[in-house]
Amino acid sequence: MKGRAVTIYDISKQAGVSIATVSRVLNGSENVSEATRQKVLTAMEESGYTPNAFARGLGLNTMKTIGIMAADSSDLYLAKGIYYLEQLLRNEGYDCLLCCTGYTLSNRIASMNLLLTKKVDGIILVGSNFIYENEEDNKYIYDAAAQVPVMLLNAALDAPNVYCITSDDYTSVFNATTKLIEQGICEVLYLYNSHSYSGKRKEAGFRDAMKNAGIKLKEDSLLFYKGPREDVSAVTALLESHWDKGHRFKAVIASDDTLAISALKFAYRKDLRIPEDLAVIGYNNSLLAECATPELSSIDNRLETLCQTLTSTLMGVLGGNEMPKQTVFAGELICRATTPA
Amino acid sequence: MKGRAVTIYDISKQAGVSIATVSRVLNGSENVSEATRQKVLTAMEESGYTPNAFARGLGLNTMKTIGIMAADSSDLYLAKGIYYLEQLLRNEGYDCLLCCTGYTLSNRIASMNLLLTKKVDGIILVGSNFIYENEEDNKYIYDAAAQVPVMLLNAALDAPNVYCITSDDYTSVFNATTKLIEQGICEVLYLYNSHSYSGKRKEAGFRDAMKNAGIKLKEDSLLFYKGPREDVSAVTALLESHWDKGHRFKAVIASDDTLAISALKFAYRKDLRIPEDLAVIGYNNSLLAECATPELSSIDNRLETLCQTLTSTLMGVLGGNEMPKQTVFAGELICRATTPA
Repeated sequence: MKGRAVTIYDISKQAGVSIATVSRVLNGSENVSEATRQKVLTAMEESGYTPNAFARGLGLNTMKTIGIMAADSSDLYLAKGIYYLEQLLRNEGYDCLLCCTGYTLSNRIASMNLLLTKKVDGIILVGSNFIYENEEDNKYIYDAAAQVPVMLLNAALDAPNVYCITSDDYTSVFNATTKLIEQGICEVLYLYNSHSYSGKRKEAGFRDAMKNAGIKLKEDSLLFYKGPREDVSAVTALLESHWDKGHRFKAVIASDDTLAISALKFAYRKDLRIPEDLAVIGYNNSLLAECATPELSSIDNRLETLCQTLTSTLMGVLGGNEMPKQTVFAGELICRATTPA
Repeated sequence: MKGRAVTIYDISKQAGVSIATVSRVLNGSENVSEATRQKVLTAMEESGYTPNAFARGLGLNTMKTIGIMAADSSDLYLAKGIYYLEQLLRNEGYDCLLCCTGYTLSNRIASMNLLLTKKVDGIILVGSNFIYENEEDNKYIYDAAAQVPVMLLNAALDAPNVYCITSDDYTSVFNATTKLIEQGICEVLYLYNSHSYSGKRKEAGFRDAMKNAGIKLKEDSLLFYKGPREDVSAVTALLESHWDKGHRFKAVIASDDTLAISALKFAYRKDLRIPEDLAVIGYNNSLLAECATPELSSIDNRLETLCQTLTSTLMGVLGGNEMPKQTVFAGELICRATTPA
């Protein structure tokens, strides 16, 4: 083990026990036999393992601090998540160190390392854009999880000491699309701007709903916007240009409320009546949905519930309890004025 | 000095030097004569003063952490402020401890004490609602400032070791109101929901602009909404009820974009054309302004500039430099489709 830091995995191997057991010993849980406890402590001593978690288990030196990473804390959805988490964690006696990482991997690695240096007790990644398609790019998460529990809010990654709390984005979009089709609207355009974990789940829900209804999916039924979704005029122009090329649609399902706003603006420009000529469904059920004209139908992914569950799961893990690796909640379509009654 | 903690003020008195000088000694600045330095150090020793700042001045033990307090980190405006500040401070090598305090004084005092316990190097209050009308209620800010610099983002309070970076909300609303009047729109309604420092400055700007134009201000020209401004349907209903009581207006200036959205919704309900029958101006130039239909004219209070200046001022103070107590920037009315051309 020379040349790199000893991790919880090394201890697990050396002691011949599961990682969960090592974690329980680290966290001072009583659900460990004295013999097992000794095996783990011996392995730690022999390997020179002295993590922060160890000190915490002994009631020493814990900073009672959780690191929160978000790409952009001013994004409507992420901001709300941070708000819920900070309050929930403070109620549990924990402070929050906030890191706005942007979207580049190198910044994320730097932020992660910074938080670990600060000896945080756990790290929460807010939003699904932290998971990369290229498996190797997720190494920074595995590395962090070797030291402290890592919690993913609306993302999934199967790794030891990583806990995922997600909304079932796949089924939410599947159901919303199916509902439109059942109402006789088969020309549905899916508008999106992210290939994140959650983005992919949503897209798959759309594709499968169309397939399930026996509708042959044309590639022009999906429209990807590359830039920042807050650029309403650019997204509106993209929809116009798509339409002007002859692609026709009678509904737009957008992967985010901000994109859905652009679909509304597109409808005004083309003199399309909402919802008669064009139905629009957004995602996140944010403040924008109620502020839109007409008020936007939107999928609520129950962010507050996700944050509550994430916090109680993290507290369980820090308390040395066996906690579920993944918890999934169903979303709900909130129907307002942009979908048929 | 028995019975309470020794503060920077006590040292200043005892050593017979200004607070700025004590601060410079604490921060290890070179702009202090050796004789003065000794006087201050002696006063500290005699009084038993050993604040975190002292350790920092000696290059010891600083946590390189700034506490950020905001009522609600998911509020569009506050979220953007936190986002800018976190990035700017991290670029300076400082971490951010985030506290969402809500709006009650007791929670604020608790959050402030929590941050001081964590030995933060400075505290930033984001938003003007931290300043109370009752002077005694601001004691928690004075007390904190006796230990670390306190930075106010868009609020003002005249106290030692408190630094204020504000947008000139008074002049922004004065100018916007005056512009409407010059365009022949004299029946202006001011819609607001906060009596905060910034809220009062805006209201005064409205009152003075009307007075300045020789328009007799009726009390029904101001409409206060008591609840959360995100409750669009309640604010819309309040406007309708005001109108239905016979109060007529041809423009609404709102103290926040969210309130302005309700004015747009009110116009649709009453079949008023925008801007011909009703002009609307919001405040903050947030994402909502661009997402509104029609796009909302709004006052930009240059939040990013405020955050940049706040950060450089704080870094100056921590570096032991004399920094301005108050810095004021002018806002700007961004004209979109809800005001006459």
